[in-house]
Amino acid sequence: MKIIRNPKIFQRLMDRLRRRGKTIGFVPTMGALHEGHLSLVRRARKENRVAIVSIFVNPLQFGPKEDFRRYPRNLSRDRALLRREKVDYLFAPPAGSLYSAGYQTLVEVAGLSRVLCGKFRPGHFWGVATVVAKLFNLAKPHRVYFGAKDYQQAVIIQRMARDLDFDVEVKVLPTVRDRDGLALSSRNAYLLPSERQRALAIPHSLAWAKIEVQGGNRNLRLLRTGVLRRLRSELDRVDYVEFMEPDTLQPIKKIPSPQPSPPRRGRGKGEGVVLLAVAGWAGKTRLIDNAIITP
Amino acid sequence: MKIIRNPKIFQRLMDRLRRRGKTIGFVPTMGALHEGHLSLVRRARKENRVAIVSIFVNPLQFGPKEDFRRYPRNLSRDRALLRREKVDYLFAPPAGSLYSAGYQTLVEVAGLSRVLCGKFRPGHFWGVATVVAKLFNLAKPHRVYFGAKDYQQAVIIQRMARDLDFDVEVKVLPTVRDRDGLALSSRNAYLLPSERQRALAIPHSLAWAKIEVQGGNRNLRLLRTGVLRRLRSELDRVDYVEFMEPDTLQPIKKIPSPQPSPPRRGRGKGEGVVLLAVAGWAGKTRLIDNAIITP
Repeated sequence: MKIIRNPKIFQRLMDRLRRRGKTIGFVPTMGALHEGHLSLVRRARKENRVAIVSIFVNPLQFGPKEDFRRYPRNLSRDRALLRREKVDYLFAPPAGSLYSAGYQTLVEVAGLSRVLCGKFRPGHFWGVATVVAKLFNLAKPHRVYFGAKDYQQAVIIQRMARDLDFDVEVKVLPTVRDRDGLALSSRNAYLLPSERQRALAIPHSLAWAKIEVQGGNRNLRLLRTGVLRRLRSELDRVDYVEFMEPDTLQPIKKIPSPQPSPPRRGRGKGEGVVLLAVAGWAGKTRLIDNAIITP
Repeated sequence: MKIIRNPKIFQRLMDRLRRRGKTIGFVPTMGALHEGHLSLVRRARKENRVAIVSIFVNPLQFGPKEDFRRYPRNLSRDRALLRREKVDYLFAPPAGSLYSAGYQTLVEVAGLSRVLCGKFRPGHFWGVATVVAKLFNLAKPHRVYFGAKDYQQAVIIQRMARDLDFDVEVKVLPTVRDRDGLALSSRNAYLLPSERQRALAIPHSLAWAKIEVQGGNRNLRLLRTGVLRRLRSELDRVDYVEFMEPDTLQPIKKIPSPQPSPPRRGRGKGEGVVLLAVAGWAGKTRLIDNAIITP
């Protein structure tokens, strides 16, 4: 595995790979890698001639009171993990190198950035969309891989790629969970043992809602209250519990009717299914999770 | 010359050219081509293996009360001109094809978009930066060419390309003028003969300021008033007269001292020179122009 720190050198290398006809699979990360990241890396490895990972803790996507400084960083461990996955190139630019003096360009995916986490983390998704646009231009990938745990992020990046005509396929792979059901996240490292125990209310409440809907409960208000109650009993704060249309992130007015399977021709992939997205706090750690529910 | 209307087909073609190692020179335009555009095309032709032109009247960069509908369109004439210049590909997407349903992504170059024309045409430069980002992703050029007549636009695009790490060299070529000094612009077609005559106050006032500065006049207030008076005596309205630092578009506080030539090592290209930018109206036509003045 080659490690490259200089953005221009990285870009030149990627351009050369493309010119030689190699397909590039790319996994952008902020490091502190876990099995969720590694599942993306394995897929990138499998579907492309060259597998690329970037590690960059992007200051632009952190609010002034957020955890940019203490965000877990462990490059030597990450490096070892990626070597084991036979990654070809690791792009790890130094902190200052992506936003030089006079930097002033932002990419905004307007509507999708204003709901869910966008309400609680103003500017966060501009930072995400902007750094991902930069990374697309540097890595020149054929395919990129994101995890469904950060569902809103994934939808925003798919939208941005399409809107700005990036020549890239954005793939979203399932959330990887610990044995106890907690979605893997680099931020889980912040949790004290007791907080981690209480955080299990998140996957439990999602599982509860799924069973309820699939058992025929179509009362949105009761479903929402049920999830909220389960979360509130364990978490220190709940930011949101939302049932939404998965592609547009618009609130749904009712649980859609069960759809005949296989899907009808012409039906969008998000049609007939519901996104349940939640965010809350265990101690000082903000956690998010979601479920795609097929009634 | 091949004419391509479908964005995806165009992008696939450009990708194939890059893979074959051909350098791509790209001139994005809104059509209604004049000698200014053609000077860019000739340079693109000369410096690259393949010369590409796009024609797309971009709705996103027009305000609700601006001239989107009546903007001059003459594809068959444009096509003939480009054939004569031996352009390889003309990309002419249909009006609706670049902003499909659900479109919501904007590229904003914050500071540079808020001065000069940005004050009078809110949102204009977001529209420009956004469509140019899209065209960069579609055309995958090695070099792109813009005219210095739209100076602020050129600086904004250079900034965007750098900030978002587009792998492209942005070249800005000198304004082409008619014999009488008026800068070529597709919008000159709107001018009645009498308006056109009055519009000459623009190049005349720029020429006056240049001679004054080079003759030693360093009184910014007098220079500005001199230009303003000359413009006001002929034009129906003056939007601005500004002396600025050419790279940052920040107002200057004094005319810089004459620099020894050739430029010192390490001196930025905009250092020691002044941008004088003006905008005003002849009848219902808004005209802009500028001069780079070396004291």
